[in-house]
Amino acid sequence: MQEVSGIDPLLDEALAAIVSRASFSGFQESGSRRFHEASKIEGGKRRFEQALGQPFVLRSSDSGFMTAEEVSPFTGEPLGIRYEDEDIDALYSRADTAMRSWAKVPPSERVKLCVDLLRDIDACGFEIAHAVMHTAGQSFPMAFAGSGANALDRGLEAVAWAWREMSALPETARWSKAFGKGEPVTLEKKYRIVPRGAALVFCCASYPTWNGYPAMFANLACGNPVVVKPHPTAVLPMAIAVRVMREGLERNGHDPDLVQMIIDSTAQPKGKVLIEHPGTAIIDFTGSARFGSWVERNAGDRPCFTETSGINSVIVESTDDYDAMLDALANTLCLFSAQMCTSPQTFHVPASGIRCADGSTVSADAFERALVERIDRLAENSPRASSVMGCIQSPGTLELLQDWEQRAKKEHYRVLRKSVPYENADDSRARTATPLVLGMDPERHEPITEEIFGPVAFVIRHPDRDAALALASETARRYGGLTSFLYSTDDHYVDLAIEAFAWAGAALTCNLSGSMPLNFSAAYSDLHVSGLNPAGNATLAEPTFIAGRFRYAQHRRPVGNP
Amino acid sequence: MQEVSGIDPLLDEALAAIVSRASFSGFQESGSRRFHEASKIEGGKRRFEQALGQPFVLRSSDSGFMTAEEVSPFTGEPLGIRYEDEDIDALYSRADTAMRSWAKVPPSERVKLCVDLLRDIDACGFEIAHAVMHTAGQSFPMAFAGSGANALDRGLEAVAWAWREMSALPETARWSKAFGKGEPVTLEKKYRIVPRGAALVFCCASYPTWNGYPAMFANLACGNPVVVKPHPTAVLPMAIAVRVMREGLERNGHDPDLVQMIIDSTAQPKGKVLIEHPGTAIIDFTGSARFGSWVERNAGDRPCFTETSGINSVIVESTDDYDAMLDALANTLCLFSAQMCTSPQTFHVPASGIRCADGSTVSADAFERALVERIDRLAENSPRASSVMGCIQSPGTLELLQDWEQRAKKEHYRVLRKSVPYENADDSRARTATPLVLGMDPERHEPITEEIFGPVAFVIRHPDRDAALALASETARRYGGLTSFLYSTDDHYVDLAIEAFAWAGAALTCNLSGSMPLNFSAAYSDLHVSGLNPAGNATLAEPTFIAGRFRYAQHRRPVGNP
Repeated sequence: MQEVSGIDPLLDEALAAIVSRASFSGFQESGSRRFHEASKIEGGKRRFEQALGQPFVLRSSDSGFMTAEEVSPFTGEPLGIRYEDEDIDALYSRADTAMRSWAKVPPSERVKLCVDLLRDIDACGFEIAHAVMHTAGQSFPMAFAGSGANALDRGLEAVAWAWREMSALPETARWSKAFGKGEPVTLEKKYRIVPRGAALVFCCASYPTWNGYPAMFANLACGNPVVVKPHPTAVLPMAIAVRVMREGLERNGHDPDLVQMIIDSTAQPKGKVLIEHPGTAIIDFTGSARFGSWVERNAGDRPCFTETSGINSVIVESTDDYDAMLDALANTLCLFSAQMCTSPQTFHVPASGIRCADGSTVSADAFERALVERIDRLAENSPRASSVMGCIQSPGTLELLQDWEQRAKKEHYRVLRKSVPYENADDSRARTATPLVLGMDPERHEPITEEIFGPVAFVIRHPDRDAALALASETARRYGGLTSFLYSTDDHYVDLAIEAFAWAGAALTCNLSGSMPLNFSAAYSDLHVSGLNPAGNATLAEPTFIAGRFRYAQHRRPVGNP
Repeated sequence: MQEVSGIDPLLDEALAAIVSRASFSGFQESGSRRFHEASKIEGGKRRFEQALGQPFVLRSSDSGFMTAEEVSPFTGEPLGIRYEDEDIDALYSRADTAMRSWAKVPPSERVKLCVDLLRDIDACGFEIAHAVMHTAGQSFPMAFAGSGANALDRGLEAVAWAWREMSALPETARWSKAFGKGEPVTLEKKYRIVPRGAALVFCCASYPTWNGYPAMFANLACGNPVVVKPHPTAVLPMAIAVRVMREGLERNGHDPDLVQMIIDSTAQPKGKVLIEHPGTAIIDFTGSARFGSWVERNAGDRPCFTETSGINSVIVESTDDYDAMLDALANTLCLFSAQMCTSPQTFHVPASGIRCADGSTVSADAFERALVERIDRLAENSPRASSVMGCIQSPGTLELLQDWEQRAKKEHYRVLRKSVPYENADDSRARTATPLVLGMDPERHEPITEEIFGPVAFVIRHPDRDAALALASETARRYGGLTSFLYSTDDHYVDLAIEAFAWAGAALTCNLSGSMPLNFSAAYSDLHVSGLNPAGNATLAEPTFIAGRFRYAQHRRPVGNP
């Protein structure tokens, strides 16, 4: 491998971190005044407010504009922002033109510029955080950290891998070989990185930047122009990032059309048209399992990176700190109201109960009650609930919660806890919902075979722990799953779970409690999406996330023997 | 990256070569008595002869057997070898069982064993060379080098890349981070390589080992069981390799069902059934463009590595050694009767002729005559023709040649040279055919849009050199192409060609003549298949050839702070 360090000190740290997998962040996670000047904090908020009700001009104020479907989950007010309604063919044509000159820029320069663009986006962290709050519904701390620094770190991680992979072959080599009795033939060979074409990046509504940045930056670093298609209800965060990237590209003498955005509406989605467009050379998709599987079927031989959805499980078998475990479980279930792809949905418990460190056993009934009680306690603490739970992104989620509550009655699930709103401390108008908790028995009820996006938890009672592990791991393997969680003090059982979830492809967290959210996934260290089950193949990040985003062209010619 | 060297000295050399791209071979290319004991040479031949007309037992002599469609292109005699006709479901079930234990073997041990298995195959080089001669129709020198050492080198190259990619992440890491005001959380994280499942490897008829070994060994190294499906007319070379690998696996205490073979017939092909089998997790396909595109459409989200076909071009614009160039062109066209995926098919010439070093110009007419004359000269020299051209693998190729000769008359192509047999020095019964050369004008004739597999060359006369480059590169980009060749003394034109063929994805060789065959593709140094056009995506070899053949599973748990 070529020398990869020395391009940028931040990139060097990222390159070290992806190998050591030690903790690293290139960006500030806290939006506190301790770390930022007041003018920056207020300026970001003001910029967000100034965007409301206005056209958001990325390219030309002469374009047709379309109002997005953005409605703040905090205020219930439409954002009223109009975005350019681009002609698709013209957009792809501009992307192709931009690629031709970008391909001539040496990969090391492209990579360096990508790192600088990440810094530029970071400089707009407050503006983006407010945009995330009022589209995705994240609380401010999560919007600033999770959709800010954590997302930028995932982007930087992708740039580091892209650079590492682009450095796998030398640019040039000399090769000598004798054929038969002839003089040796000496050839000079050159290996050139060739981009693929426009990369279409679908962003999701609840966590647009975290999946968006890795795809956008991996593509751009590898030479491909990027077309961002945000979710119609969460455009602004991506629009700001696209604006910043375009400005940075132009300032550095590059074609801003290397990063473009296209918007659509729920009534007239453009996803299929874009996938079928011959200009789309690479697909990065985050979204629903239903459309995701259509995308996978229609990607043909184009590189296609997906994250759809999964059913994440917790198995509670035994614990040496029952109290801390309960807090950890309640917290992870409440975190952003379980609107994260890593949030658990099913809780598996042996019917015989949970063994504790003191030799006692907590019955399954008692565990259910205690879990509900911890959720109640969190929900009743308005400032804490506001910070942890944030808002419900989509009104559809509230309907889903109602549907499941009705269904529970009909199908005799035990309704352990109803979903009710909590009082949001930031805005009394906020759309909120605390977790619905349902009790199920696998032998009496249909198995859960799809993700229910939002704060719903099923506590599933099993005849024994082996049945719990079998169902939890098989569900992930068959229907998709990103994460799994286990509480067990029995090393043998832990080993069985490690084995089962490895084959199922759901990243396992064992016996974690305390200050770290269970489902926190750290850039440079935690792999996100395994590629081993239907939840997707877009692993953040290792070399497969880069593979196919560029290809090599080779030429060779004779040179005089040395 | 982890330390990768030290597992095996041969692998260390391969690991160095894939980075330096310098000339390297781990195996002996010559089958001469100067390098091998007579007993080895004769033993290999005898083993081949003993196989004729017999059952070839890989697993159990109780199986049902099926006679393959193997007929020697040298003798015209059927080989009459019967191979086990395996039940598909049972075969996949055995593969899955084998994978479970193989996955537990540390990747470094798997890789070491793969290198040893390559050595074992090499030890059967003479037996395999005779098997290749009498199925694919290669001459002995080509069968021993091209289907022996060169193919093993491609296999070793794939093992080196597999090992390098499997070493990208550490097996274990420690990670510490403080959340909020809490104590730092320290986690131990483990990253485990998880294989995907049975890898189905389709081998072609004319060059089975060269594409087969890289796929087989990349899969095996990454933990996947291999199912080899040879072409029904060229089973024996792969059967021997599978036998050797099974024996080596068993001798080292591993499940021999990690490498299995399944045969079919032209009348009842099993390709579609195997692709659609839920047990097929990875697809490696070498074969026709038609079935290849069906394979790509039906691969779904499974890793699918393809090499189908391409239209390879030569552009002759100017030269400083006209004579040597003519020899190089005639040779490459005759090499194995152009039954190589790297053989050129179209020769592009400016109508104004070819500029030579002495300032003279050779007319396009004169070039056509000279090319034909060089081919004639080669064809008339029976020992040399035998060594260079070998036999025609399939009787269908002779029909194809006749068709094109008829079509030329109808469509008024100029028939510059008819295809006639040459006198093979090894066996007078050999099925031989010298190149058919046709003259075409792009403005008068339909463009060539598909590979014609066999010794056919079109000399296409263009109004100017730019038109020649445009058509040659656009044909590769649009219909597929692996190689391209250019003769030009004008640096500006060479640069234009480098640019055009880079975007078209056809590896370019400039101004090569002399002892090296133009279309020789060196393991560890020359990239084969670019992934940039419809000829396929199975690049031999760089990291994309490995991507997706394994995935990572991760688990993490708290450990005491240090």
